[in-house]
Amino acid sequence: MKKLINNPDNVVEEMIEGYVKAHASSVKMLENKRSIVSTKPTIENKVGILIGGGSGHEPAFLGYIGEGMADGVAVGNIFASPPPSPILETTKAIDKGAGVVYLYGNYAGDVMNFGMAADLADMEGITVKSALTSDDVASAPLDEKEKRRGIAGEFFVFKTAGAAADKGYDIDGVVRIAELTNDNTRSMGVGLSPCYLPQTGEPSFELEDDEMELGLGHHGEPGIKKVPLGTADEVADELMTRIMDELAIEDEEVAVLVNGLGSTPQMDLYILFRRVEQILSEKGIKIYRSYVGDYITSLEMGGASITITKLNDELKELIDHPVDCPAFTQK
Amino acid sequence: MKKLINNPDNVVEEMIEGYVKAHASSVKMLENKRSIVSTKPTIENKVGILIGGGSGHEPAFLGYIGEGMADGVAVGNIFASPPPSPILETTKAIDKGAGVVYLYGNYAGDVMNFGMAADLADMEGITVKSALTSDDVASAPLDEKEKRRGIAGEFFVFKTAGAAADKGYDIDGVVRIAELTNDNTRSMGVGLSPCYLPQTGEPSFELEDDEMELGLGHHGEPGIKKVPLGTADEVADELMTRIMDELAIEDEEVAVLVNGLGSTPQMDLYILFRRVEQILSEKGIKIYRSYVGDYITSLEMGGASITITKLNDELKELIDHPVDCPAFTQK
Repeated sequence: MKKLINNPDNVVEEMIEGYVKAHASSVKMLENKRSIVSTKPTIENKVGILIGGGSGHEPAFLGYIGEGMADGVAVGNIFASPPPSPILETTKAIDKGAGVVYLYGNYAGDVMNFGMAADLADMEGITVKSALTSDDVASAPLDEKEKRRGIAGEFFVFKTAGAAADKGYDIDGVVRIAELTNDNTRSMGVGLSPCYLPQTGEPSFELEDDEMELGLGHHGEPGIKKVPLGTADEVADELMTRIMDELAIEDEEVAVLVNGLGSTPQMDLYILFRRVEQILSEKGIKIYRSYVGDYITSLEMGGASITITKLNDELKELIDHPVDCPAFTQK
Repeated sequence: MKKLINNPDNVVEEMIEGYVKAHASSVKMLENKRSIVSTKPTIENKVGILIGGGSGHEPAFLGYIGEGMADGVAVGNIFASPPPSPILETTKAIDKGAGVVYLYGNYAGDVMNFGMAADLADMEGITVKSALTSDDVASAPLDEKEKRRGIAGEFFVFKTAGAAADKGYDIDGVVRIAELTNDNTRSMGVGLSPCYLPQTGEPSFELEDDEMELGLGHHGEPGIKKVPLGTADEVADELMTRIMDELAIEDEEVAVLVNGLGSTPQMDLYILFRRVEQILSEKGIKIYRSYVGDYITSLEMGGASITITKLNDELKELIDHPVDCPAFTQK
């Protein structure tokens, strides 16, 4: 494990400190040092959007606060849910009276902590509603969809729900958009090499030199199976088959995200995207918007995921809405 | 070497194909398949900005064509200069009658090929001027600055010169800005782990598990020395000492870029930035704008570089100018 860090026990604090200083004109940290909120002006009575989860997924989640996406983030330790306290503090800081929507991935720790924070906020008179992301087709069968994890599809949930809030939707409207986006989204990933946890120096999983793991989770959770390392086209074919089998697409257009897990070159991501586009084109499916890059990572993990979101007219308008965040800007 | 690619001989072609399809609304490829140009509208009589160099540095260079940066790119093989022919074709496609400025790093192959292309363009009646980037303080002593390589500081040269062209500067004005930015820019990097060339599978350099290389180049060129792996703060201190020694800063503000070489987590980059900000703050130097992320990479190389650009009022205005490119958008 070779990292450019100082004391492994302080990596999250030091990252946040650097992040807040690098983007001081648009974000600020609360006193607890684990809550960060956007300082950009918003519309009056805007529903607050709170995102969060463990560290190590940068630019998620802290990079996605600003105009058109989230208003605040609660930052956990590496690959660990933030405790209820910073979630509550972020909630209080971003509530403008119209309530706050929590958007997070379907992980036991997050469900517990965000749930407790919502109860605490309720006791303080703040309305909180939650929408979970569960886009990873490899994490459980379709008939147990409630067990599925959220992976890179969260980006599209943040995008559309953030846009809805920015356009003045009320809290139920924002939740409806987040749930619709999640329902219309499927992702699957492949892992090639592990990441290393700063405090232990241990790899997140083990693979042979000629192996890859299909369906690997964002924290190194086991996938569907270990298979021989395939070509980019073979990987795209395998992931897209499982994704498209579940998305009953008739004449809808789609948004595509080819996401790098940390150490995969953009060259490889564009080569993967090339095959994704071919597959969709062969099916007569039009791509409305494409995103290729490192959107939700796992430190220096090697591999990538593919996400497809089926769009209706409302989601198209929300996908098009402008964004200005430290990690993502769209005109 | 584990990569998500198909035939190693076709990685550049397949990457370009994926890239052009992913960003079809704003870029197009010319028939030669190694020239890509922006299709966004520009002001009349705009000076054309042509960037380029080898592949493997993504999002550089192809990600930086669009509003406010470059108009076209010539794409070489991995870590190899594009030949004169695609440079010439790109030149012809982007010239609007006001001439074209070539911006590229100071490497022998690029100097030769961009020089030949400029001569060929001249024979076709197109005025071409060039500005080289040579920001890497580790690549030669100050009294041999003409031998220095261009590394991540190229991003700031593209940014300011692209803004100048977008604001209607003439060809000499654009060259003046590019040269001023290069004169005011210093960078230095550190390498922790090699990248692997797709065609050979060989690492770009070798380091022991507890070593790092100070001043390593973007193609694995030897740096100043191999030293024991340091902390983020030690690395920032070492790089910043060499950078700041050459920048005679009085009351000017600076732009900062902490650039990842490919596989370095954003967490580490923000921890490095944290120390850079401390160092500048201790010197009473104000940061005008900060950029932290993978701006110019070397496939999956591990490590990072720090770039500091001294700004005058004109450069501040140009750094602030909006940009809308596939790999970089600034409002």
